[in-house]
Amino acid sequence: MSDAIRVGVIGAGYWGPNLVRNFFEAPGAEVVAVCDLAQERLDAIRKRYPSVRTTRDHRELIADRAIDALCVVTPVSTHERLAGEALRAGKHVLVEKPLAATVAEAESLVALARAQDRTLMVGHTFVYNPAVMKVREILRSGKVGDVYYVDSQRVNLGLHQFDINVLWDLGPHDVSIVLYWLEAEPDWVACMGASYIQSSIEDVVFLEMGFPSGALAHAHLSWLAPGKRRTMTVVGSKQMVVYDDVEVAEKVKVFDQGVERMDPDELRRSYRAGDTYAPRIAATEALQLEVRDFIQAIRSGRPAVADGEAGLRVVRVLEAAMRSLREKGSRVPYREKVRA
Amino acid sequence: MSDAIRVGVIGAGYWGPNLVRNFFEAPGAEVVAVCDLAQERLDAIRKRYPSVRTTRDHRELIADRAIDALCVVTPVSTHERLAGEALRAGKHVLVEKPLAATVAEAESLVALARAQDRTLMVGHTFVYNPAVMKVREILRSGKVGDVYYVDSQRVNLGLHQFDINVLWDLGPHDVSIVLYWLEAEPDWVACMGASYIQSSIEDVVFLEMGFPSGALAHAHLSWLAPGKRRTMTVVGSKQMVVYDDVEVAEKVKVFDQGVERMDPDELRRSYRAGDTYAPRIAATEALQLEVRDFIQAIRSGRPAVADGEAGLRVVRVLEAAMRSLREKGSRVPYREKVRA
Amino acid sequence: MSDAIRVGVIGAGYWGPNLVRNFFEAPGAEVVAVCDLAQERLDAIRKRYPSVRTTRDHRELIADRAIDALCVVTPVSTHERLAGEALRAGKHVLVEKPLAATVAEAESLVALARAQDRTLMVGHTFVYNPAVMKVREILRSGKVGDVYYVDSQRVNLGLHQFDINVLWDLGPHDVSIVLYWLEAEPDWVACMGASYIQSSIEDVVFLEMGFPSGALAHAHLSWLAPGKRRTMTVVGSKQMVVYDDVEVAEKVKVFDQGVERMDPDELRRSYRAGDTYAPRIAATEALQLEVRDFIQAIRSGRPAVADGEAGLRVVRVLEAAMRSLREKGSRVPYREKVRA
Amino acid sequence: MSDAIRVGVIGAGYWGPNLVRNFFEAPGAEVVAVCDLAQERLDAIRKRYPSVRTTRDHRELIADRAIDALCVVTPVSTHERLAGEALRAGKHVLVEKPLAATVAEAESLVALARAQDRTLMVGHTFVYNPAVMKVREILRSGKVGDVYYVDSQRVNLGLHQFDINVLWDLGPHDVSIVLYWLEAEPDWVACMGASYIQSSIEDVVFLEMGFPSGALAHAHLSWLAPGKRRTMTVVGSKQMVVYDDVEVAEKVKVFDQGVERMDPDELRRSYRAGDTYAPRIAATEALQLEVRDFIQAIRSGRPAVADGEAGLRVVRVLEAAMRSLREKGSRVPYREKVRA
Repeated sequence: MSDAIRVGVIGAGYWGPNLVRNFFEAPGAEVVAVCDLAQERLDAIRKRYPSVRTTRDHRELIADRAIDALCVVTPVSTHERLAGEALRAGKHVLVEKPLAATVAEAESLVALARAQDRTLMVGHTFVYNPAVMKVREILRSGKVGDVYYVDSQRVNLGLHQFDINVLWDLGPHDVSIVLYWLEAEPDWVACMGASYIQSSIEDVVFLEMGFPSGALAHAHLSWLAPGKRRTMTVVGSKQMVVYDDVEVAEKVKVFDQGVERMDPDELRRSYRAGDTYAPRIAATEALQLEVRDFIQAIRSGRPAVADGEAGLRVVRVLEAAMRSLREKGSRVPYREKVRA
Repeated sequence: MSDAIRVGVIGAGYWGPNLVRNFFEAPGAEVVAVCDLAQERLDAIRKRYPSVRTTRDHRELIADRAIDALCVVTPVSTHERLAGEALRAGKHVLVEKPLAATVAEAESLVALARAQDRTLMVGHTFVYNPAVMKVREILRSGKVGDVYYVDSQRVNLGLHQFDINVLWDLGPHDVSIVLYWLEAEPDWVACMGASYIQSSIEDVVFLEMGFPSGALAHAHLSWLAPGKRRTMTVVGSKQMVVYDDVEVAEKVKVFDQGVERMDPDELRRSYRAGDTYAPRIAATEALQLEVRDFIQAIRSGRPAVADGEAGLRVVRVLEAAMRSLREKGSRVPYREKVRA
Repeated sequence: MSDAIRVGVIGAGYWGPNLVRNFFEAPGAEVVAVCDLAQERLDAIRKRYPSVRTTRDHRELIADRAIDALCVVTPVSTHERLAGEALRAGKHVLVEKPLAATVAEAESLVALARAQDRTLMVGHTFVYNPAVMKVREILRSGKVGDVYYVDSQRVNLGLHQFDINVLWDLGPHDVSIVLYWLEAEPDWVACMGASYIQSSIEDVVFLEMGFPSGALAHAHLSWLAPGKRRTMTVVGSKQMVVYDDVEVAEKVKVFDQGVERMDPDELRRSYRAGDTYAPRIAATEALQLEVRDFIQAIRSGRPAVADGEAGLRVVRVLEAAMRSLREKGSRVPYREKVRA
Repeated sequence: MSDAIRVGVIGAGYWGPNLVRNFFEAPGAEVVAVCDLAQERLDAIRKRYPSVRTTRDHRELIADRAIDALCVVTPVSTHERLAGEALRAGKHVLVEKPLAATVAEAESLVALARAQDRTLMVGHTFVYNPAVMKVREILRSGKVGDVYYVDSQRVNLGLHQFDINVLWDLGPHDVSIVLYWLEAEPDWVACMGASYIQSSIEDVVFLEMGFPSGALAHAHLSWLAPGKRRTMTVVGSKQMVVYDDVEVAEKVKVFDQGVERMDPDELRRSYRAGDTYAPRIAATEALQLEVRDFIQAIRSGRPAVADGEAGLRVVRVLEAAMRSLREKGSRVPYREKVRA
């Protein structure tokens, strides 16, 4: 394994150790160093992976020429600075989602990666989730027909962040999934929300996106709910698909029913409830597929599915949504008009 | 039963026969006449209730001095005219929801009922639903704390109306329930939606209401969904309550968990998941309780729970929501400012 | 409707009124008379169906030559006597399940119906349930392969009978369904149970049947359970089918997975979890289909699906199960050896 | 951590690595050596835990005087021999369930542990499951009243064992839980089953136990089912409790409803459906609690909850059940009568 990709991880909080474990399980890579400000986190890593070097100074990892790739698993506000340093030092970089705190920062990272000819990837783990991939496959097959709308519920109790609101915390999941499924960017974004627990940090938001095809996406994101819910419904002209990530046995269900267009002579629309069908979903861990895509992108030079561009698109939606939030929910264009 | 209230029913489509049956089952009332334009509906009524007189001309019922009360179970556009005729003829009137097609019409009915000193009631059946009543009882007990927001999902496949959109079809349920629970009127209303099956008749809408207390209500209403969903979640500062009308065994569930206000030294909010509790809900049919409230309101002269004023408040919300819909979702005040 | 079949109903307790309603809704039949010992039940019938004659003396119905068919909806101990009188008087007869209290009684009714050339039917309502019929269709298609076993859960709280145990109360459902699905009679029957609430009236039993094919059926019947459960699982060599009558949306689900026969070199069997599929089930009321089958059997002379023979087979199982119950669960042959 | 208990693990198949991980996470213990016949399993252990010594010869672990405790995680047929060797070498021993293949073997291990004054423990993980512990707490509180019966469903597709049947594979879970809850040993055992996939290895069994109090326990164990089910229902005279291990949010639910004893004047028992209540269950991993109990038992000398005696009781039930299985389901006494 002498030509394994040598990986460093900056940030060993909740998510970092998952990345470490997955790089250890993936062929063709090994974690050589982990950095965190908290010594007890580093101790925990070392107890589990005695061969891994640990440090509290991320510059050691940036400077280490033996490290090929760096994972940035730190608060959003630091993404641009840390990922930028790593790219400039010639590393390939995997940044946790969202890619950056602003569109400007995300654009700068994308440009920098291109200039340095390095792989830039963002941790949109859900686009590597086998159930999410199965839904895209179903949508591509054409059986669902035209997509009318996508409705998403992503709520649960607790884990309020103190530095970002629920839109930036949970929203990247829904936005990255919807853009991946529809293979399109929205025309406009609207967002409404409220802050109940911490002033000026929204814990409940309703996000809308309108697409060129006429499709609509709606997401209810909340830290304030009685239980975990992770349900996305795709309503198409021919079929409907429900993806419920909390469901154990049937994560994806296809409803073979549609609505016929109106017959003006009938008082009520016919109600055609058909069969339902739940395809088998592979049990592979999404993060493992993500890590492998990163490794292959580095080796082959081709972009990862969740490449920097994908990360930038999600940040664009979030930034537009923030503006809508401040304007009490009015529609905001996805792309700013070019300023003269 | 010589002093039973004698009831006539105008409209024998889907809902009318349910009213007929419930008046037959309620003590102190009897259905004496049913009117509909379709002869086969009248035949079906007569086969089931041979003692009931049937006619295709509603004026017969209006003119019949032996009839004490009339139910108007016809398309919304006809409510004001038919209920108005009935009130002017001195009848007590139960109008199917929504009370009328416009605020002006609803106001005129309320004023007319007051002038004629007759009982005017609207068929907000859900405020007589034992599960909905249990939630109000729980909210009034104070255990839930301050209500942060109410989220409602009322979706299912099919039964597209041809004369009204999904807001006017399903919205009266959510709006009447939320106003009944919060015992308040909203400050503003916002609504976004789209028409997929019939042009310019929205089949999917998202409705928001903002209340003086800061509470927010959000409802997803749709005729385009893979299955029936009737879930309303009340998030309070101390507890949360879920009312799921599709659930057989546990229609109301109380989550004894809240969120503590932020400790600035902690990185993440504490996550306190507590016990859950499902109170027993009486199995009484809501429509039976509604019919009995109508009878008692007539006898006692006191307003029904779902009186004309309640009907008017719901129409105010719907009319404001329609305006917001045309303005692409911007907030609209619940009460028009007085125009100079 | 002068040639409609004229029906009388003996017994207007819980189930009788359902039969009355369904005969009124079925084409080609009308209920002309209802008998019950309790006057208030007769009053309730008459309030709803003013054209129906009521009486407290069942002999009036037996003697009435204008009545073509009688339904016997009385306690089991009276079935043989009442159905016998009706057959002897030349009536067609529908007896509520189980057909009779003993094999001897059931045999005598079957013989009498044959001698009188009248239709004898038993109210095995579940074999007219569209979901149960769909499972038989699936089994007949061969896709399920060999049936290994059927497991049934039929439990709920309450409604303890005072005259019969839970085996005779709930067992006819499971036994009639299993015999209908497997199209076979068992070789042996075993039954174990206990009486908790009323001494010597079992409220919990476990029933087993062994079939010539090697298939096994197991049923857990109980009046003592925290909630209603109506689940039957068919395990076949190629597929498995679950029928859950409590489920609203997916009453029948097919699991496209089987188990491969053992490879001696492998430590563990391969685990092949495949797709699942839920066929659309018609919403027709089973009792309506039952009533129509009764009418058609009378008109055509062909046996009903739930004819006297079907009723006799179920009583054979129940009687054998009672013997096993007294023998603490040992296996008892389905058919008594011929006594010399 | 110089006085940490030094643990060796024999068997690194499916379960062994879970034990290794849990000993690493538990305070006061460390895994020093792992043995398995398969080199690739040892390689996997070493990749993850480079400090752990590995070997294919279990005698190295037995002989190592630096090892305080050994875990035997091998096929049942080898338990008595390996655990016996370890005890004789003065080690404390944790044996995977079931403790041994026969009552005689289990008795010999219990006696040996006593003679050697060592801790003998069996891996009845479920008695360390927080939900199972909560049910015992509820039962001990007396609120449930007399326990009438326990019904258990433990089924799923696949993972057929080649050396033991489903009774020995899944049965130890149900039996250990029921004995732990009822704090009693059964009077008799009955068991019925069938072999569909491998001849003479039952893949479906129904197990019954009768207790001195009159309580009954019934378990449906199967490798042949369309999905995983892990539901145990305790029916008591005052309340009922359901423990569903597959359920994420409400693993334990208490039904505050019972059945009143019969009133001879009533035709039907009153049906009292009350509130339901789901206590919060700690999320601690059962295996972690098991491992800690082992460590504390070693340190303190007091027996573990799942001590050798508990293991012996479960083997007694399984052996009796095997005899009943061969006798086609007839009742077999839990303890053999002393043969003269």
